[in-house]
Amino acid sequence: MPISEFSIIERFAQRASNCRADVRLGIGDDAAVVAVPSGMELVVSMDTLVEGVHFLPGTEPRLLGYKALAVNLSDLAAMGAEPAWATMALTLPESNSQWIEEFADGFFSLADQYSLALIGGDITQGPLTVTVQVHGFVPVGAALQRAGAKVGDHIAVTGTLGDAGMGLQMAKNQVSPLTDDHRYVINRWQCPEPRIGAGVALRGIATSCIDISDGLLGDMGHVLSISGVGASIIVDRIPLSDAFRRLSEKHYANDSKGLYHFPLTAGDDYELCFTVPDAAQARLAKVLDLIGVQYTIIGMIRKGSGVSCVRDDGQAYEPHGSGYQHFVEK
Amino acid sequence: MPISEFSIIERFAQRASNCRADVRLGIGDDAAVVAVPSGMELVVSMDTLVEGVHFLPGTEPRLLGYKALAVNLSDLAAMGAEPAWATMALTLPESNSQWIEEFADGFFSLADQYSLALIGGDITQGPLTVTVQVHGFVPVGAALQRAGAKVGDHIAVTGTLGDAGMGLQMAKNQVSPLTDDHRYVINRWQCPEPRIGAGVALRGIATSCIDISDGLLGDMGHVLSISGVGASIIVDRIPLSDAFRRLSEKHYANDSKGLYHFPLTAGDDYELCFTVPDAAQARLAKVLDLIGVQYTIIGMIRKGSGVSCVRDDGQAYEPHGSGYQHFVEK
Repeated sequence: MPISEFSIIERFAQRASNCRADVRLGIGDDAAVVAVPSGMELVVSMDTLVEGVHFLPGTEPRLLGYKALAVNLSDLAAMGAEPAWATMALTLPESNSQWIEEFADGFFSLADQYSLALIGGDITQGPLTVTVQVHGFVPVGAALQRAGAKVGDHIAVTGTLGDAGMGLQMAKNQVSPLTDDHRYVINRWQCPEPRIGAGVALRGIATSCIDISDGLLGDMGHVLSISGVGASIIVDRIPLSDAFRRLSEKHYANDSKGLYHFPLTAGDDYELCFTVPDAAQARLAKVLDLIGVQYTIIGMIRKGSGVSCVRDDGQAYEPHGSGYQHFVEK
Repeated sequence: MPISEFSIIERFAQRASNCRADVRLGIGDDAAVVAVPSGMELVVSMDTLVEGVHFLPGTEPRLLGYKALAVNLSDLAAMGAEPAWATMALTLPESNSQWIEEFADGFFSLADQYSLALIGGDITQGPLTVTVQVHGFVPVGAALQRAGAKVGDHIAVTGTLGDAGMGLQMAKNQVSPLTDDHRYVINRWQCPEPRIGAGVALRGIATSCIDISDGLLGDMGHVLSISGVGASIIVDRIPLSDAFRRLSEKHYANDSKGLYHFPLTAGDDYELCFTVPDAAQARLAKVLDLIGVQYTIIGMIRKGSGVSCVRDDGQAYEPHGSGYQHFVEK
């Protein structure tokens, strides 16, 4: 059933109702009015998902609503920020009541986990596109940044890498029948879990941090160039899920790109990659253990520039390809 | 010349460089970090422009860059906020170096007027769409709102109405040759001037405020319904520019919709419509005179609901159509 622009806004406004005292004026005026707590800085990030570019045509609206927020929250996680508010610009080819309900279900299923308030946005007609901006808080001066990695720092990642990249391939290839392993990696691609808790825990511990959205090599490249350092990664130490290992064996046993292709180059895992000085290792272990987040040391910051990959036995490892780029230089 | 995503971001980042001390971390990390001054609340607004819906295909990039920011600043003006930062999600079919430069020229020509810093955003490939979010400050509790119009308040508007609506028609009809009058109304449509100064000046004076983006009747309808009041407008008092009057005579002399059709129903003027108690009239005249902003009392808030339009002689006036809607109820 087609519904009007104002009805759509009304539906979001109803779902967005909440009791955050820092929202002075939410959806329904020319702008929202909010208050940043004293002693806190505001962290903002904006990401756009375009149909056919960032998600497959026909993607379930619930999954899209979830992911549009998740990828943004992952940026807050990378800064060590705690989420507070979101705004959303939703461009829709047609106003379909059921689609919008399901999209909102996905969005708010994640927003509610973090008491995140939707405070405003815009609904327009056009090709399906979702832009979300998230707003979070960090204590003054405590934001984690890409700049700051120091020679000798350990390089660590949360969780496991490569699952989402493989999940995307499985979905694209329409693999059938699906085993639990397939469902696991597809879910990792569709419903990434922003590492908010880990990001907050890393304040004062990590010397640099980034979320892995474009692939480990590409994203680490940003950290290295802005920090003016290089890195050595021991590929055998990259944490892989059991499902990923089994599926690699099943589908990619003869693939020349090797076991570490997805973990090194595929985006969409939304794990955190961060650096820690040796002296902070004990504290790191303690805080991440406290919140139950797995992490793995995969290498070390060194002088120079760029990433060198090696095997456990010290042999050089040459990866295939690097990070994702929207517009490729021609 | 096609350029990469990172090059595009780099170009915007260079233009965005500025000396706002409240920007702790700008473009180039996972998120931006900013500080809201003590005693201030944050006002945020987000608007999307879609090619073929909000602007004509082939619109000059400079005009698009200007307007994408202007319509957002107008929302800040309606809240009485002073602009501080912007974020932008730009979706482009292809990365054209010259297009991007010109778009940035338009955007920053306006941003620089207000020392507004571009602090982040996203560049993606897809159908041409621009989403801008602006962030501004108001002293705690001082934001102008749509709610608050009281029975007996005067209704006022800044500037003149109808110019942009007529300008859009002139552009669509490709009127030729263009006179200065045509150019004037087309410019009013292409390059609306956000009423930031007036909005700030109206703090503590206006009981309600909205910017006219969808048409006076439609936008005033929002103010009335949320304030729980009605309004009487004397259409002959609606301020019209000389160019508008002359072009009405020239092109619309026999139009059954009458002289006030554009002023009442066309959006895009981005003037402010606000209400003031009788007791605040002297102060209003003084503050708006001080900043050189023309305003006109066009009616009064009354009990009831909705807008009644009358002529100067007291006769009822029936307008044609109302405000702009993206998705029309079917």
